[in-house]
Amino acid sequence: MPDENLKSPEKQAIDQAQPARAGESPLDLEPASRRAFLQGAVATTAATAMAISMPQWAQAAASAPDMDAIRKEIEKRHEESLRRLQTWIHQPSIAAENRGVNEGCEQTMQMLRDAGFGQVSKVPTDGQPGIFAILDAGAPRTLGVYFMYDVKQVDPAEWSSPPWDAALVDKPGLGKVVVGRGAVNQKGPEASFLAALHAIRGAGDKLPVNLVLVAEGEEEIGSPHFPQIVRRPEVLAALKNCSGIFMPSASQGLDGQVLMTLGAKGVVELELVSSGERWGRGPRRDIHSSNKARVDSPAWHLVEALVTLVSPDGNTPVVEGFAAKARPISPEEKAMVAKAAQRLDEAAAKKSLGVQHWINDVSWEQALEMLVSRPTINIEGLVGGYTGPGGKTILPGRAVAKIDMRLVPDMTAAEALAALKAHLAKRGFGDIEVNMSGGYDPTSTPADSALIRTETAVYRHGGIEPVMLPRNAGSWPGYVFTGDPLRLPAGHFGLGHGSGAHAPDEYYVIESANPKIQGMDGAVASYVDFLYAIGNAG
Amino acid sequence: MPDENLKSPEKQAIDQAQPARAGESPLDLEPASRRAFLQGAVATTAATAMAISMPQWAQAAASAPDMDAIRKEIEKRHEESLRRLQTWIHQPSIAAENRGVNEGCEQTMQMLRDAGFGQVSKVPTDGQPGIFAILDAGAPRTLGVYFMYDVKQVDPAEWSSPPWDAALVDKPGLGKVVVGRGAVNQKGPEASFLAALHAIRGAGDKLPVNLVLVAEGEEEIGSPHFPQIVRRPEVLAALKNCSGIFMPSASQGLDGQVLMTLGAKGVVELELVSSGERWGRGPRRDIHSSNKARVDSPAWHLVEALVTLVSPDGNTPVVEGFAAKARPISPEEKAMVAKAAQRLDEAAAKKSLGVQHWINDVSWEQALEMLVSRPTINIEGLVGGYTGPGGKTILPGRAVAKIDMRLVPDMTAAEALAALKAHLAKRGFGDIEVNMSGGYDPTSTPADSALIRTETAVYRHGGIEPVMLPRNAGSWPGYVFTGDPLRLPAGHFGLGHGSGAHAPDEYYVIESANPKIQGMDGAVASYVDFLYAIGNAG
Repeated sequence: MPDENLKSPEKQAIDQAQPARAGESPLDLEPASRRAFLQGAVATTAATAMAISMPQWAQAAASAPDMDAIRKEIEKRHEESLRRLQTWIHQPSIAAENRGVNEGCEQTMQMLRDAGFGQVSKVPTDGQPGIFAILDAGAPRTLGVYFMYDVKQVDPAEWSSPPWDAALVDKPGLGKVVVGRGAVNQKGPEASFLAALHAIRGAGDKLPVNLVLVAEGEEEIGSPHFPQIVRRPEVLAALKNCSGIFMPSASQGLDGQVLMTLGAKGVVELELVSSGERWGRGPRRDIHSSNKARVDSPAWHLVEALVTLVSPDGNTPVVEGFAAKARPISPEEKAMVAKAAQRLDEAAAKKSLGVQHWINDVSWEQALEMLVSRPTINIEGLVGGYTGPGGKTILPGRAVAKIDMRLVPDMTAAEALAALKAHLAKRGFGDIEVNMSGGYDPTSTPADSALIRTETAVYRHGGIEPVMLPRNAGSWPGYVFTGDPLRLPAGHFGLGHGSGAHAPDEYYVIESANPKIQGMDGAVASYVDFLYAIGNAG
Repeated sequence: MPDENLKSPEKQAIDQAQPARAGESPLDLEPASRRAFLQGAVATTAATAMAISMPQWAQAAASAPDMDAIRKEIEKRHEESLRRLQTWIHQPSIAAENRGVNEGCEQTMQMLRDAGFGQVSKVPTDGQPGIFAILDAGAPRTLGVYFMYDVKQVDPAEWSSPPWDAALVDKPGLGKVVVGRGAVNQKGPEASFLAALHAIRGAGDKLPVNLVLVAEGEEEIGSPHFPQIVRRPEVLAALKNCSGIFMPSASQGLDGQVLMTLGAKGVVELELVSSGERWGRGPRRDIHSSNKARVDSPAWHLVEALVTLVSPDGNTPVVEGFAAKARPISPEEKAMVAKAAQRLDEAAAKKSLGVQHWINDVSWEQALEMLVSRPTINIEGLVGGYTGPGGKTILPGRAVAKIDMRLVPDMTAAEALAALKAHLAKRGFGDIEVNMSGGYDPTSTPADSALIRTETAVYRHGGIEPVMLPRNAGSWPGYVFTGDPLRLPAGHFGLGHGSGAHAPDEYYVIESANPKIQGMDGAVASYVDFLYAIGNAG
């Protein structure tokens, strides 16, 4: 979904989080397992620096043939990489408004060609086109890459620097950042990944892995046609060779920490529309409110329907059959959450979210466990009748609840939607329209998959012990890769920091003034390291 | 309340209604009682014309000393009267926006002086000022008059003729109408009443009754300070001498019918605000919706509270104590409704309202009975979280329901509000803010009061048998007059037609092309007749 991959609920928390025990570095937590992972993932010596600069980071990837040269290329090409990102941001590409999408697609295809992809083709769908690209490096291993080239809508009036200017701005405490729509979601991390390809080639090296890239231009509207791209025979055939699929991401919080998730909840976004038109009772349009004495109310009808969906405290879905296939959290997942709870700062999370109490006043660990394991039915918005200031004496002909439902394995979007419809019909609310606007199934990737092990190892290699959670409570369309027929590991990766996805003044750090956070060159180096680690993965 | 006096639920119906039996004129319904009423009200011969022109109408008021001269004055002063209305409309006076209210007050005071009021004073309140004016004609009887000088907000973009231009526009089927904000609500009818005073004086006659006028500039925001105007000792003292109080009104529907009501329901308008801030649970602002798994939802909290207010079909208030003092409909009122049901056209009402079924599929007579006798709790609007197109994955920190509650005698606004608050507190929703924005008690006037009998007689005199209902299901602040300490009859009166109160292209008919509807001169004549009838009332 639109904001999920970057705005996971814990991302905000991490932005403000400090290690659970003051003075304790992430690496101190599990030195033994860290070393084991590193050895299993990349054949290199363990990193020693705690907070390392870009050159150290790139240098440490011992398996790269000429890491000094690559490091110099990254530095040399800093301006070129920044300009590429700025050029990318200059082109709005907004599926929700059908604005500049084709231009954005063509531009992205050209950037892929420039970065060394030999085969780059546009993939038509029933919606906006996708991209299928292959970089054949003649390497033994192949890595899948997932790009989005669309961005979220903007209200330019809310921005301190115009959203398409991609201006380089000094941000106190952070350094120089690019401000623009798409800066962090997702063009910044994607541009850093492309810069890594340029740097490796510029250093005279061959890429250590082949790449198969799929891109979509509808991520921000819920990826409705992404399966049409991935499930084309030639795309499936190419992806089947991959050891995993990753999306470039600015994964560092403000404290430098990285949160990794082994998948994500599924989601269904929908509108429940109660109308006199459809109900056959109540008015077809807004009428004077005094008529309530003799005319049924579609707004009350909606409220009565809504209240049947959840427990009286509004917290537990009670839609019949909705969560029938919800898999309970496993002992391994519980242990993982318990570890994460030690690392993540509850007070910072509560402050960041503006909440005083978790549901039922549960503990931090329980709250994290609920976050990753509970299916939900949430009201995103209520819109009915008069919505302006003060009152207006009308009986509205129509009222709408905007709902999202989050799904855990083994629930599916289709089954959740069907359960909701059946539930409403059974309780006398069959007239209420259920208009699904987007959504997809949960996605899960095994902790012991090569992709996750390699990602973890590379982070540790860079001095960062990632915080691991069984899944992101947000959603991303990873199910297309992790589900049938591919069943591949899929996840996000990348150092660097940014924020403001879907909000004004979205930014991506270019030159970091915070020693815990990597700037663009550091992010580029993390992709270089990752590519060599994947290439060398056993 | 804002739209009540002109947009009664039956007004729309009457606009499209035909007599219940085709070809049957209203007067044919009850000839015997009609004659009895006429004799009791004004000492004059019964009118014979079924659809009469203005001159006939004015001529027929036999008790006026020089009706021919007055009729000629009305015609002679047509342009002057029209210009007065246009000048009035040119001045916006919007309490909700605090726009031009003082100017509107001064302008209205000057118009009252011009019309012969000898004493005109501005009455300060905690809100916008009111007006207290006396026209001492040395007559034995005194009539109270209620004016509003404020108008509803406008969105000029929605108007085909600018709202402050007061342009004279040809309206197909209706004739020449003034289009402007306040045209019918309430400056048109009020201007016609003032024109009646000018015409009587212009004809060299003295007014047959003394007048005590009270005006407010906050009718459109629920008359919050009107009691402060009426309950001043000097105003109370003057009003105590009145035989009744009336508001000029364009009472004719499109078919020429007039609906009279013996009062109106009371109303309470309020917002129910559920917020994390106030609740102490849930977020203080909108957060990512995936947090629903661990964070309470103020939106669900609101829905759960709302559903406790009404029966499961959304139609019957179940707030404890809310309707405890609701007086059941009396046999006399039932009979009155039954008669009205014969006169009013159910199909036209349903068409006008856009409804196919009344609540529980009751009959037309039952629907009318419910309309006048049932207290209601209505949702005017729902506003929470994301209200734009599509969805947005947030858990809103705040959600609001805009509610109106309609009250029947002997309920009071204060008691209804207190019952609602106690109900919410008792059920665990005491944190939900109950913000009352306006409202007042029900108002009732006896059918056998001199005011109502005279109004009825004058209508009949003009060939119109009014349809009578026990009360308007809408609301107006008549309680200030009908309640303690005055306990005076109060109602609306006036021929003429207009529509679009609170809507774009509000209009008032100046020159009628529809023989069943009076234009401005006819409306003026109806006030002349009414004043003489009141002056002569036994």
